Amino acid sequence: MSRRRQIYEGKAKILYEGPEPGTIIQYFKDDATAFNAQKKGTINGKGVINNRVSEYIFTRLGHIGIPTHFIRRLNMREQLVRQVEIVPLEVIVRNVAAGSISKRLGLPEGEQLPHTLIEYCYKDDSLGDPLVAEEHIACFGWANNEEMQDIAAMAIRINDFLCGMFAAIDIRLVDFKLEFGRLWDGDYARIILADEISPDGCRLWDMNTGEKLDKDRFRRDLGGEEEAYQEVARRLGLLQNEDG
Amino acid sequence: MSRRRQIYEGKAKILYEGPEPGTIIQYFKDDATAFNAQKKGTINGKGVINNRVSEYIFTRLGHIGIPTHFIRRLNMREQLVRQVEIVPLEVIVRNVAAGSISKRLGLPEGEQLPHTLIEYCYKDDSLGDPLVAEEHIACFGWANNEEMQDIAAMAIRINDFLCGMFAAIDIRLVDFKLEFGRLWDGDYARIILADEISPDGCRLWDMNTGEKLDKDRFRRDLGGEEEAYQEVARRLGLLQNEDG
Ligand SMILES: Nc1ncnc2c1ncn2[C@@H]1O[C@H](COP(=O)(O)OP(=O)(O)O)[C@@H](O)[C@H]1O
Ligand SMILES: Nc1ncnc2c1ncn2[C@@H]1O[C@H](COP(=O)(O)OP(=O)(O)O)[C@@H](O)[C@H]1O
Ligand SMILES: [Mg+2]
Ligand SMILES: [Mg+2]
Repeated sequence: MSRRRQIYEGKAKILYEGPEPGTIIQYFKDDATAFNAQKKGTINGKGVINNRVSEYIFTRLGHIGIPTHFIRRLNMREQLVRQVEIVPLEVIVRNVAAGSISKRLGLPEGEQLPHTLIEYCYKDDSLGDPLVAEEHIACFGWANNEEMQDIAAMAIRINDFLCGMFAAIDIRLVDFKLEFGRLWDGDYARIILADEISPDGCRLWDMNTGEKLDKDRFRRDLGGEEEAYQEVARRLGLLQNEDG
Repeated sequence: MSRRRQIYEGKAKILYEGPEPGTIIQYFKDDATAFNAQKKGTINGKGVINNRVSEYIFTRLGHIGIPTHFIRRLNMREQLVRQVEIVPLEVIVRNVAAGSISKRLGLPEGEQLPHTLIEYCYKDDSLGDPLVAEEHIACFGWANNEEMQDIAAMAIRINDFLCGMFAAIDIRLVDFKLEFGRLWDGDYARIILADEISPDGCRLWDMNTGEKLDKDRFRRDLGGEEEAYQEVARRLGLLQNEDG
């Protein structure tokens, strides 16, 4: 374990070289950051939960035909995934106005959007992940047209699936962030879902109480972030077998 | 003159009711604003020059088949235009990185973009005209798909024309802002070019010296804004007949 080569340390995860070529290990930390890492902290047990939640979601997305990087969970904090060339975009799917879009467009938080909205941000911490349009993506070659069509189509399907999944456990899926990557096969690259899906990158509101069950508890100093993450895992039935 | 009804007073122009239904008068002020009107000032004679420059450009765009609101110039500071329902977007066409895109995406000012880029900002002063993508435009119904196609196609043609026009007078067209509006004809609305095209909404750099001949002189406290506006008008051959 200790002799594995570290490839990258990010804000929430560490990437290690995997056991075979083309694989990597995602190690989930408890580190929490917000506002482009201006705010830093720890949410105890977050890494364990996000590893489990992301495994759960990626596995089920695979079942409906969404190609993902997920291979298998290795232990409490680690999962083996296919290495991809990350498309440098944060793909944000929004059902309800909250967070940056509320501020940017003056929409009251909690207002249902006229229809589901996909936003793209250029993934660059030093620039603060600025919002971009398809024109920028094409102009700077961050992804080609066909790739963007695949990404948008998958994002919409993932949203429908996740809305259903969370509705079943009385959670309203307000918005969430996705990352995609290129899996090269000779000269041909296929777009697959990468990174993670967890309460770190989703806004999850209890359908009955409106309580926030996501990283906004940390961002907005609401307290109870550990309990919120656990509550999501519990409702998904993931807390029975805690030893991973 | 004094009994005309004022319809709207904006940052750079005043709109008056026109002589016939469906027409309005644009009165060009010398007022200059920048950074969403946080900075305010006056550029002497700017209104007169912008009225002439905009007349010149809109007339010639008409000749290549771009439909515009322009009917005729009335006097030094006023022009008669067709009243439209403004599409609430600032359509920004960029050939070279400068201003907000340089900051937002970390591009050195003066760097040629890989290709011409169209950006859309939601025209709302209270929100600071935020950048939006086609997804937002569709989601909030600011323009429909067909209208956006017309707008993009016209923006590209206008850019080609203006690049040529300014190249002929040794000016590099870095970027510029357009506004479009709907001209209703029964149930059918046609998109036409509205507002103005002038050194207020263009970045114009002297091809040989790099000198800025536009509102950046005011924005960045470079001085010489009156001379810069005059220089553009002079090179376009518009200073011979100053009495309008
Ligand atoms: N399958 C994958 N292959 C390669 N890189 C990946 C894969 N999945 C996710 N990544 C990248 O690994 C990093 C995950 O660590 P994270 O802490 O989220 O980093 P960051 O602070 O950059 O968001 C991200 O930069 C993400 O883009
Ligand atoms: N043909 C037109 N019909 C109606 N409104 C127009 C037309 N052309 C421009 N406008 C609008 O008139 C105003 C022009 O005044 P301006 O000082 O530029 O205002 P602003 O501060 O809103 O940009 C703008 O709001 C612009 O959208
Ligand atoms: Mg991340
Ligand atoms: Mg204006």
